[in-house]
Amino acid sequence: METETITIETGSDRRVFDLTSAIEDFLRTRDVDSGLLNVFVPHATAGVAIIETGAGSDTDLMDAIDEILPRDDRWRHSHGSPGHGADHVLPAFVAPSVSVPVIDSAMALGTWQSVVLVDPNADNPRRRVRLSFLQG
Amino acid sequence: METETITIETGSDRRVFDLTSAIEDFLRTRDVDSGLLNVFVPHATAGVAIIETGAGSDTDLMDAIDEILPRDDRWRHSHGSPGHGADHVLPAFVAPSVSVPVIDSAMALGTWQSVVLVDPNADNPRRRVRLSFLQG
Amino acid sequence: METETITIETGSDRRVFDLTSAIEDFLRTRDVDSGLLNVFVPHATAGVAIIETGAGSDTDLMDAIDEILPRDDRWRHSHGSPGHGADHVLPAFVAPSVSVPVIDSAMALGTWQSVVLVDPNADNPRRRVRLSFLQG
Repeated sequence: METETITIETGSDRRVFDLTSAIEDFLRTRDVDSGLLNVFVPHATAGVAIIETGAGSDTDLMDAIDEILPRDDRWRHSHGSPGHGADHVLPAFVAPSVSVPVIDSAMALGTWQSVVLVDPNADNPRRRVRLSFLQG
Repeated sequence: METETITIETGSDRRVFDLTSAIEDFLRTRDVDSGLLNVFVPHATAGVAIIETGAGSDTDLMDAIDEILPRDDRWRHSHGSPGHGADHVLPAFVAPSVSVPVIDSAMALGTWQSVVLVDPNADNPRRRVRLSFLQG
Repeated sequence: METETITIETGSDRRVFDLTSAIEDFLRTRDVDSGLLNVFVPHATAGVAIIETGAGSDTDLMDAIDEILPRDDRWRHSHGSPGHGADHVLPAFVAPSVSVPVIDSAMALGTWQSVVLVDPNADNPRRRVRLSFLQG
């Protein structure tokens, strides 16, 4: 299996980070053909998603997450920033793993799809993402 | 990798479309054995899920989506039908990719499970779904 | 494909069950190398997630599920325990399938990640989980 861990500098921003071009680079340099690409985030307070970026949905998503999992004092798991317990529940809904078909060395994404790291956790300035390719 | 894109006529309905028999057809005609089937929706406003259909959960799911991601004017990404920004956030929670184990040419689904396209977007009358099979 | 179905005795508890060590056992006994492990729950009222366990997030997750999908009489799909229709919608948000990269016979999980069965359905005392490994 072709596999590699890349590092994303997320700083103190609670936001969505576009991984698409980093994944495209991974596929290009590995000289792969067709198969399945798995994107895996080895962190307990982040997820990975496939959405349209650049038209507002990035911020809409972060707002929706705060609405669905409010950053208040309801969480048993409480440490770090206020409401951080919400970040620990997030990966159940926005999973840290997604697989994308690869055809002729490129992800078979739709026109408006980007693969993004969803990171609501401002306490963690650096994230790793594992890219793995299984030949079809 | 055995891979094919099928087309689903979704019309103007905001609803769930059962893909199970189309996937079974794909597996049968490809003469596959055991491995992993990936169902991928190359659209930014739809997802794929595995639920029971036919007993009301299809409609329950669409109602739950409207409750969780209300179709009001909160969304930065605003075009098309009112509240359409919600559709762009949906794929973060109902991902456009799911993988199902295949044993002896058939999906290893439970008795009550169906693979469905979740399409809350009435502006898009036709959807593509990519089916990909990786030999195990 | 190396594949096996394990059984989890969930009793009448509505909770999260850690599958990590059972998966590690599966990988060890199968003498696998590197590839992709798929965890698939063949039930229509349960999901699988990757979260931190043991610090409260297990219970936080069950509470969040009840907040997002309330166990009241809104559900068309109504049988079994009150509010059971919510369990039938859950798998659209907490999918019954997740894939994890395997490197040198071990899941490439982060330090705080565990693979868990999410089972809000108290009516079902026993659950099956299919583990499948695709060589990379």
